[in-house]
Amino acid sequence: MTNTAPIDLRSDTVTRPDEQMSAAMAAAEVGDDVLDHDPTMRALEERAAQLLGTTAALWVPSGTMGNLIALMLHLKRGDRFLAPRGSHVLHHELGSAAWLAGGMPDPLEWSAGPGRPTAEAVRAQANVAVGYDKLNTTLLCLENTHNSAGGTVIPLHEHAQLAAAARDSGLRVHLDGARVWNASVALGVPPAALTVGVDTVQACLSKGLGAPVGSVVAGSDDFVREARRVRKMLGGGVRQGGVLAAAGLVALDRIDALAEDHENARALAAGLAEIGWEVTRPQTNIVLAAVPDVRLTLERLDVAGVRAVPMSGQVRFVTHRDVSTADIKEALHRISEARI
Amino acid sequence: MTNTAPIDLRSDTVTRPDEQMSAAMAAAEVGDDVLDHDPTMRALEERAAQLLGTTAALWVPSGTMGNLIALMLHLKRGDRFLAPRGSHVLHHELGSAAWLAGGMPDPLEWSAGPGRPTAEAVRAQANVAVGYDKLNTTLLCLENTHNSAGGTVIPLHEHAQLAAAARDSGLRVHLDGARVWNASVALGVPPAALTVGVDTVQACLSKGLGAPVGSVVAGSDDFVREARRVRKMLGGGVRQGGVLAAAGLVALDRIDALAEDHENARALAAGLAEIGWEVTRPQTNIVLAAVPDVRLTLERLDVAGVRAVPMSGQVRFVTHRDVSTADIKEALHRISEARI
Amino acid sequence: MTNTAPIDLRSDTVTRPDEQMSAAMAAAEVGDDVLDHDPTMRALEERAAQLLGTTAALWVPSGTMGNLIALMLHLKRGDRFLAPRGSHVLHHELGSAAWLAGGMPDPLEWSAGPGRPTAEAVRAQANVAVGYDKLNTTLLCLENTHNSAGGTVIPLHEHAQLAAAARDSGLRVHLDGARVWNASVALGVPPAALTVGVDTVQACLSKGLGAPVGSVVAGSDDFVREARRVRKMLGGGVRQGGVLAAAGLVALDRIDALAEDHENARALAAGLAEIGWEVTRPQTNIVLAAVPDVRLTLERLDVAGVRAVPMSGQVRFVTHRDVSTADIKEALHRISEARI
Amino acid sequence: MTNTAPIDLRSDTVTRPDEQMSAAMAAAEVGDDVLDHDPTMRALEERAAQLLGTTAALWVPSGTMGNLIALMLHLKRGDRFLAPRGSHVLHHELGSAAWLAGGMPDPLEWSAGPGRPTAEAVRAQANVAVGYDKLNTTLLCLENTHNSAGGTVIPLHEHAQLAAAARDSGLRVHLDGARVWNASVALGVPPAALTVGVDTVQACLSKGLGAPVGSVVAGSDDFVREARRVRKMLGGGVRQGGVLAAAGLVALDRIDALAEDHENARALAAGLAEIGWEVTRPQTNIVLAAVPDVRLTLERLDVAGVRAVPMSGQVRFVTHRDVSTADIKEALHRISEARI
Repeated sequence: MTNTAPIDLRSDTVTRPDEQMSAAMAAAEVGDDVLDHDPTMRALEERAAQLLGTTAALWVPSGTMGNLIALMLHLKRGDRFLAPRGSHVLHHELGSAAWLAGGMPDPLEWSAGPGRPTAEAVRAQANVAVGYDKLNTTLLCLENTHNSAGGTVIPLHEHAQLAAAARDSGLRVHLDGARVWNASVALGVPPAALTVGVDTVQACLSKGLGAPVGSVVAGSDDFVREARRVRKMLGGGVRQGGVLAAAGLVALDRIDALAEDHENARALAAGLAEIGWEVTRPQTNIVLAAVPDVRLTLERLDVAGVRAVPMSGQVRFVTHRDVSTADIKEALHRISEARI
Repeated sequence: MTNTAPIDLRSDTVTRPDEQMSAAMAAAEVGDDVLDHDPTMRALEERAAQLLGTTAALWVPSGTMGNLIALMLHLKRGDRFLAPRGSHVLHHELGSAAWLAGGMPDPLEWSAGPGRPTAEAVRAQANVAVGYDKLNTTLLCLENTHNSAGGTVIPLHEHAQLAAAARDSGLRVHLDGARVWNASVALGVPPAALTVGVDTVQACLSKGLGAPVGSVVAGSDDFVREARRVRKMLGGGVRQGGVLAAAGLVALDRIDALAEDHENARALAAGLAEIGWEVTRPQTNIVLAAVPDVRLTLERLDVAGVRAVPMSGQVRFVTHRDVSTADIKEALHRISEARI
Repeated sequence: MTNTAPIDLRSDTVTRPDEQMSAAMAAAEVGDDVLDHDPTMRALEERAAQLLGTTAALWVPSGTMGNLIALMLHLKRGDRFLAPRGSHVLHHELGSAAWLAGGMPDPLEWSAGPGRPTAEAVRAQANVAVGYDKLNTTLLCLENTHNSAGGTVIPLHEHAQLAAAARDSGLRVHLDGARVWNASVALGVPPAALTVGVDTVQACLSKGLGAPVGSVVAGSDDFVREARRVRKMLGGGVRQGGVLAAAGLVALDRIDALAEDHENARALAAGLAEIGWEVTRPQTNIVLAAVPDVRLTLERLDVAGVRAVPMSGQVRFVTHRDVSTADIKEALHRISEARI
Repeated sequence: MTNTAPIDLRSDTVTRPDEQMSAAMAAAEVGDDVLDHDPTMRALEERAAQLLGTTAALWVPSGTMGNLIALMLHLKRGDRFLAPRGSHVLHHELGSAAWLAGGMPDPLEWSAGPGRPTAEAVRAQANVAVGYDKLNTTLLCLENTHNSAGGTVIPLHEHAQLAAAARDSGLRVHLDGARVWNASVALGVPPAALTVGVDTVQACLSKGLGAPVGSVVAGSDDFVREARRVRKMLGGGVRQGGVLAAAGLVALDRIDALAEDHENARALAAGLAEIGWEVTRPQTNIVLAAVPDVRLTLERLDVAGVRAVPMSGQVRFVTHRDVSTADIKEALHRISEARI
């Protein structure tokens, strides 16, 4: 059989709920989450907190809202925050870290590797002159895995150094862990190992885990109490959210399965390299390829039946649970045939 | 049989998806709404726009976000807006109309009836002195039905006068139509009749219509294009939102059924009056009762197995699709027995 | 001699520095206020704090900035504040209380008299339902004298009741005392008597006291430390501000002279009443006159050589140190002659 | 004679009004600038606009407020702006570009020289992916001279290239010209030559020109009309501002005299180099010196009677009209004697 449908490698956000997940959503016990705390929401939030090593967690409609709520609670007018160059909070959240959370960003260079700043840079950039007319640096915002750097992972010892640098400099730490599950699988450690020294973390239930809608933002009990209020402010409080939380609970059982996506990404990268593409070895489920003309390449890929997106001046492919190893082979076949 | 479960009249937000709705959610065709516009989302948004008499509509996670997006697009720093005293945007959305949408409110008195301002007041309060150091009044924000006034309906001729006053005074009009469906049923006109002269409208799919999550905000194509961007800013953009849109489509087929809720509300009010309560005749599905001590009454109702909430210094009961006519009788029985 | 120059009763903001004040400005010892705290600024701020009964004070370029800084420090997203209907912070500061200080206003009716709310209303409107989805009422913002009510004064015992109601309800109190000096003279008490129970107060050096530029905002040491930072944020930090502070110090020696303005206002009101105008008896230096057509009356006054402004749907005259008792007589003569 | 007073090279903001300037302030014709546009303010604003090559200008209390107003009018939520690394708007204005003007900054590297980005970088960083979920880059904010780079000047041909890159990329251009007068003197061209292709410019009357308080922000008539409104919003509208505008008019006659400050800076740098300091050759009135321990050096300078400040990890000396050539010699003598 010739499968002629396009193979969609634009993002792991395209994953669709499967039958098991749909069944769980249909069967979910629900309540009014604003009035009573929906019981399935509560179960999801407890499970997520446990996995992430925090005392509490809050469901949010999107990773963007999760990051936004955390930054709104960490930052105020006159605060500066540090984040690696190219971070999602700097480039993909429509500037809400600045205009809504009120923080002035100061980007950290990738001196330790793609997407990875050094602890020295954190110390240097946190250490600013004092005076009532000076910005206070108050937050370090990490991203693990780092999307625009190509799904790169912060090694555990580097994470520990970064967290220590933040603590020593009086900074709080927020982890944009939209794909923290991928980092955990790549490193072979539980997700909670990646939140040591972190005050708050956001992690997506959609993306690789396959829930249709939703993320969690996690931290202390106090943080989550305040976060619930800010979520309501932004219009992210929902009523019978249990239907979505049920999908989230199924998603959280699928963390280990991300290993297949990573394997597929390595196979894709190897295959592309074989036919002459310039690709870096993927650490998780993202493959970045340097091409002379990104727009042209994406168009030709599209014609050939493989979909990707531009990212950081390169072509980005993302593997996910809705593309199989066979699909990857087929994608490589199509790219090779089309001589892109 | 003695049903001992509490009868929940706190809000129509407590309604739960029934089997038909759950099945629709499970069967929904979905896509990545950020990348591709999810097909079921698109169908829902088209259907909602048609019902509301606008050219376009946008799904949002909550009515609060729908109102917020509209106000963010209508208002800017240095603008004043008019809204009836006690409006949801003034009292139940955590002040986002002020701190996020940037508007300074000027409340309109209920001179035409509970929850209903007069066109004269709109003209008078819109007509402010000019000068670069003066606020510009730019928006009239109506609420139909008006929640804190007891689910009251703006008659069609009054609505026309209010819209004309706004237009003549250079104001745009946003309608907080969280329960616009109830107003439409009460007046016996299509919902679109209630948006004549209105620039934007927000209407809930949860509440009386029973969807678990979601509202729509509707207006012109340009408005909805901008609204989609603002929704993303706030973190309200979701991926496979079709699962929720499917529930919304089922909900939109149930507008006529709200008539039963209204009948139940009338029965409840009549029954309460019979046993000596001071209640106003309900126009839709909300019953407000004046009692000497709201907190005490709510506690005694709770013990008796009937749940309500405080609202505007009174006790508020809301009928909805998850309470039957028999439930209302039982509630009256319990209240009567408990001699509250 | 016939003086044909217009008599300017538009506002006490039109007062110009006299020779003594100009000389003081020219002779002022100055320094860089951002780096070193300008010595004349420091002297002014100490004197103002002493007069206002606070431990510290900060010079600001305008009363608007003084109020804004106080509200920015008292309020945050999700807070509600109470202020008398028609307050300067609601109508004459371009909405910054909402969009910048982040507060949702809830107006207090003038139940105790023009510009004067009751303590009962403060208690009732502060006492809101609790819950994470509810606004917190955190501030009472008074205005003494109340401009748009006609320069009305809050009696001492009412002030005490209002402050007690705020304290009992957990509200802080900010006093917009742009014309607090007038209130003090009218009541025959020191200004500090009007700040009892108040957390922060703003008072103008321009207006009746005649400084060309500037106000002070006063409160605790902690408040003023934070206020200095916010002033810098807004661009209100200046360098050799001592030139203006010197004028302010002269202005603060002229509080008692406001009694003449009050006398002139009474004379103006009496004279207007004599020729048939409908005026209320002024309590300080503001006279409000009810006329059938405000715009027309203002135009005719202008032609006759008397200048006034519209305020609260009436004509407002303000007496000040640059109009003498003879000027008032002449103004009445002109109005009478012109048969306005 | 041994002058033992410290020689203050911390900033040109420490300059004090001399007799001529004080006399002008005392003699200024003034009016209520909010009601009538103060006549001396008007004269200053016309003169500043003429010098800066714009059609209109507005006095503001500080350079910070001038930049803030321009950014508030150029930027909105969801906008990104480009500014050279280390810019005043990024590091010395308490983040208001982000939290109040609503812009997400994207720093430009100093690829063309200290404080000077390249036109290529402007084109590259302006050229971002489109999509409703992407930030729009809308503004280039230049700084000439660039403070934290050491008072460096953008050469005319580079300025033209930067402006062209901005125009081609659809960006507006704001020039933070706090010290644009110094750049003009250094290049030997009129100030207006430095605003070619620029939409708005802020220039300080204090700093080197010696006015005690004030800056101007200049641009089109429309811009200045809006800027006047925003100034009022922020509390920067003043009444008899003519007293300060008079000082500003005197200041604007002293642009040429900045050449002496530049000469003194060169003498200081040469002298420091002679005794072994590592200094870069100053282009204007700022000398940056690299030292092993900034804090220690500043303390030792202070003891020796020479004052400076930390800047960009170095020691910054600024020459100005209140330090003479003899003072510079004396400063070098003290530093040399103290063997710092």
